[in-house]
Amino acid sequence: MEANLLGALEAAEAIREGQISSEELIRACLSRIEESEESIGAWAFLDPEYALEQARNADQIRSRGGSTGPLHGVPVGIKDIIDTADMPTEYGTVIHSGNRPFKDATLVALLREAGALILGKTVTTELAVLSPGKTRNPHNPDYTPGGSSSGSAAAVAAGMIPLAVGTQTNGSVIRPASFCGVFGFKPTFGKISRFQVLKQSPALDTIGVFARSLEDLALIGEVLITYDQQDPAMKPSARMPLLQTMAEDPPVDPDFAFIRTPAWNQVNESAKDAFRELIEHSRQRGVHLEIIELPGAFDDVYEVHRQIMEADLAKNFDKEYRDSKKQLSSVLCELIERGQKVLATEYNTALERAAEYNEMLNEIFEEYDAILTPSTTGEAPKSLETTGSPVFCTIWTLCGVPALNLPVLQGENTMPIGVQLLSKKGDDARLFRTAAHLMKTIGEEQ
Amino acid sequence: MEANLLGALEAAEAIREGQISSEELIRACLSRIEESEESIGAWAFLDPEYALEQARNADQIRSRGGSTGPLHGVPVGIKDIIDTADMPTEYGTVIHSGNRPFKDATLVALLREAGALILGKTVTTELAVLSPGKTRNPHNPDYTPGGSSSGSAAAVAAGMIPLAVGTQTNGSVIRPASFCGVFGFKPTFGKISRFQVLKQSPALDTIGVFARSLEDLALIGEVLITYDQQDPAMKPSARMPLLQTMAEDPPVDPDFAFIRTPAWNQVNESAKDAFRELIEHSRQRGVHLEIIELPGAFDDVYEVHRQIMEADLAKNFDKEYRDSKKQLSSVLCELIERGQKVLATEYNTALERAAEYNEMLNEIFEEYDAILTPSTTGEAPKSLETTGSPVFCTIWTLCGVPALNLPVLQGENTMPIGVQLLSKKGDDARLFRTAAHLMKTIGEEQ
Repeated sequence: MEANLLGALEAAEAIREGQISSEELIRACLSRIEESEESIGAWAFLDPEYALEQARNADQIRSRGGSTGPLHGVPVGIKDIIDTADMPTEYGTVIHSGNRPFKDATLVALLREAGALILGKTVTTELAVLSPGKTRNPHNPDYTPGGSSSGSAAAVAAGMIPLAVGTQTNGSVIRPASFCGVFGFKPTFGKISRFQVLKQSPALDTIGVFARSLEDLALIGEVLITYDQQDPAMKPSARMPLLQTMAEDPPVDPDFAFIRTPAWNQVNESAKDAFRELIEHSRQRGVHLEIIELPGAFDDVYEVHRQIMEADLAKNFDKEYRDSKKQLSSVLCELIERGQKVLATEYNTALERAAEYNEMLNEIFEEYDAILTPSTTGEAPKSLETTGSPVFCTIWTLCGVPALNLPVLQGENTMPIGVQLLSKKGDDARLFRTAAHLMKTIGEEQ
Repeated sequence: MEANLLGALEAAEAIREGQISSEELIRACLSRIEESEESIGAWAFLDPEYALEQARNADQIRSRGGSTGPLHGVPVGIKDIIDTADMPTEYGTVIHSGNRPFKDATLVALLREAGALILGKTVTTELAVLSPGKTRNPHNPDYTPGGSSSGSAAAVAAGMIPLAVGTQTNGSVIRPASFCGVFGFKPTFGKISRFQVLKQSPALDTIGVFARSLEDLALIGEVLITYDQQDPAMKPSARMPLLQTMAEDPPVDPDFAFIRTPAWNQVNESAKDAFRELIEHSRQRGVHLEIIELPGAFDDVYEVHRQIMEADLAKNFDKEYRDSKKQLSSVLCELIERGQKVLATEYNTALERAAEYNEMLNEIFEEYDAILTPSTTGEAPKSLETTGSPVFCTIWTLCGVPALNLPVLQGENTMPIGVQLLSKKGDDARLFRTAAHLMKTIGEEQ
């Protein structure tokens, strides 16, 4: 296997054991990038020489017997709305072209502490909202990779890097993971620090990660799920043993609820067929799976999310809007202008509704170990003008429950479709265990 | 000394050692209430028979050798916006007349766990905002006791109870403590649970306590400062050893900053004189005290607080406003109507400003151990139509720093005036130590 196709766990182990150097790994990744970046466009910033220098440095530390972390010498791509002290951070807009942060985001520092090598900055949509960047889908460049974490998903899918970090305020991790056919993980809200990450909507913004296997997601998730008092949404709590829990068998067979959600009528027919087949196949393999409905109150959930997000965009992109409106896309200006009109009472009522939705989900999680639902309305749209609909992520982002994209289906154009697996807030480790069990049961051994 | 005038620490110790029974203590308190409640009007609910029954129960537990908490058998008054499962909770408005909560607020449960006896519910202004209840100032019934925790401050000042609990969203603990001449403590924001307490403004609402000595405040503060995940503003943290820290001498003499604030021109002349004398006297006694100014940005602080509070009143009293507007005071309706117009962007900008103010305060606390400032504009107004101005509490509530009222001054009408002592967020224990040191140094031995 080409070294660039190694998983993060494998690569870290191979480096630790001296079977491969970090420099060899990075050279393989850079070579893959060189051959495909022109058609994929995953990178906003990449300096091959600097990457190799970091790799040689990592190799030196190891050869001198220095301490190595769980990601020693392994490259990670960072969405270009996350600050890096040694690389530009341009937030996907010319307005911030050339911006050089003074310090690393907490999550970047945690990755470096774990030995990871920040390979470069991956393409984001404009300010992590809707307007697409240059990235194309690695499975077929005529299709969108999804957004807003477009470059992170595409780079992992294309075998350029084993791991990448993105963010999700609506559907920006799970959707591109689904469209690009990789694993994606959006942890419980408030579990990964957002300090020095572009603030879009503090009530919704969630860091997420991409990998080509569940265990690689668990590995990077464990590194990043660390309390940081500089993110006001975080509370001190025990670290999550994702890898260890994932390796265990569930004490009893998990019960799954398949939920179509109020957005089911937006799923295209071939994707509906794929989900029906998945349900059928899973049941044949003995998976306990029931199809249930959400309470009627969830019909308003998209409006509730919209009010919070738009009001927050208006607040947090106020400077960009006032000083540089002409350089913003019209779609973003419209969102901001709607957000400017939201009343504080509406905003706070929406936040309260989000808490109520969560209690309703908790009742479902009393009966079921996990929820299965589409990650997206189907395959990626055949377009570079849109990043597709986030509608299948809205509920779960608003409620802050942990979500995984499992890339197990295909649509009529042989493009990937993901199924989303969700569990109760804080149950991230159990979600991984349930996901691993499900993958095994339906014959999707990794 | 009459038993009702015992401090909480003394009373708890006397009960523990069998020198007095809880029943005797409660009888003394009830007798004091019987003689003065008609002129003071501190109580919204009080059932003497039930109180005595609780006291006899406490005495039985003790006589059987049962475990006793630090407040065993000691009566506490609870502001009538804090839920109690065994007493009505009417929030100071006829709209909620006869309301009987199903369960205790977390703070009430903590008091009961500590052995305290909930004597009754104390008078609050209408929905803990501005419109006065029936309470009068125990020092002179022609004067307001301050609000909104009017009954709690007055009952402690009048010797009816040694301890009472109130809440502060602007100046509702420190102001009545100043006007009634008792000690008041508003801890760091997010340190005492507000679960099952009337929600006025989640970003500002803070539980506070009243006593006739600093050490009694520290005693009840320690009991109440306990993490409760049901209050979303709380984070797990170590318990605060207020009593123990307070008993220690500061390692070096503390440095004080006297701050007049932008509201100094609202202080009346006799109060200004009293503060000048306090400064003079303190310096003569060797207190390190400098007079400093707040940065100019603080000129907007009242407007920032107003936007948050009014928007939150509009949101949280929406039901009362829509269903029962005629039963609300016109002053509250005006606040609500202004709050209905606040935009989400203004609201969130105001919250951000509050965080910025806090950073400015942190710079002051780099140089000074504590800030001294007036608690109120002077003595209580001679009126029962107003509860006086909260203007000297606004900054500190907005910033969530811990505050103490020290009842050490008097105005021209021989009514009490308090001085306010403030320290950095989270430094509550050190604030008590600094306060004890200051009181000793200026000859105000308790």
